[in-house]
Amino acid sequence: MVTSVQPVQPIEFLRKLRSIRRFTDEPPPRGAVDDILAVARWTGSAKNRQHWAFVLVRDREILARMAAAEGSAKHLAGASLGILLVMDGSDLVEQETFDEGRLAERIALVANAHGLESCIGWFKGSGRDDVKALLGIPPEKLVRTVMSIGYEDTGADGARNHPEHPRKPLADLVHVGRW
Amino acid sequence: MVTSVQPVQPIEFLRKLRSIRRFTDEPPPRGAVDDILAVARWTGSAKNRQHWAFVLVRDREILARMAAAEGSAKHLAGASLGILLVMDGSDLVEQETFDEGRLAERIALVANAHGLESCIGWFKGSGRDDVKALLGIPPEKLVRTVMSIGYEDTGADGARNHPEHPRKPLADLVHVGRW
Repeated sequence: MVTSVQPVQPIEFLRKLRSIRRFTDEPPPRGAVDDILAVARWTGSAKNRQHWAFVLVRDREILARMAAAEGSAKHLAGASLGILLVMDGSDLVEQETFDEGRLAERIALVANAHGLESCIGWFKGSGRDDVKALLGIPPEKLVRTVMSIGYEDTGADGARNHPEHPRKPLADLVHVGRW
Repeated sequence: MVTSVQPVQPIEFLRKLRSIRRFTDEPPPRGAVDDILAVARWTGSAKNRQHWAFVLVRDREILARMAAAEGSAKHLAGASLGILLVMDGSDLVEQETFDEGRLAERIALVANAHGLESCIGWFKGSGRDDVKALLGIPPEKLVRTVMSIGYEDTGADGARNHPEHPRKPLADLVHVGRW
């Protein structure tokens, strides 16, 4: 595992994670991809089921075709790397979906530790089958989430392309002792 | 936001997260709870829906009753803090469940940055309604995940009570280009 990334203040590191949808053409270095996969592999799951596999996609033509599939993954067309999360598709849909969220969050974080940005894409309806057919994935698998990875393209004027979205105040979210 | 925690090497920080089920009686300090809530609040969600709220439970009697509800949350009886994730219960079950996983992962990580450990508990069947009734949560909400938080009790002999579970080799998980 490559550990040449800089130490971080963990609260800020977690707090500041954002979704970024526009990327430069520069590919992630090998060491970053190795770390992403290492951290993804060690993601916790209910009963340690590890109900996932990953397809790394770098071919721009394939990325563009995936981006056009039904769902919300248009940003994939501009990513230098796509990581498709392939879930086992077991009867434990609820737990698989929850664990898939844990996995996606960790991939976003480890990429960010390497100065990379990411966005979660989501296939719906026929988009799921189309992506499976495109990449030769067995039909029983569940294909839903893809992560776009790359360095942020801040545009010619350097303005951030995707500003921080506001959040609800804690007073609306937190209940102490009971609801 | 309290930021007095030590810097971390982010890959190790992510890689080493474990689930811990046995805790000392020492409660998490105020600053740690503040950071947990701040990071939880900033969790990303599909279309920034933020479909969640939190109930902090410290009462040992209530924690024991929650731990006895149907599901897998027995460890809650020994936690010094329980954080119940209360989801909106919208029609977007799939996205809510995915985002709930992202949220839980971040809570585990920020707690760990403060030297705290955690375990995800999961209510099933009648356990979900029982917990809602116990805490006065509106029936339309979805209550499924609870996080046990505390300092690890390593036992009298100092042995870790919950060793690292093995993971599948990367060769079984990673496909390049296509399946």
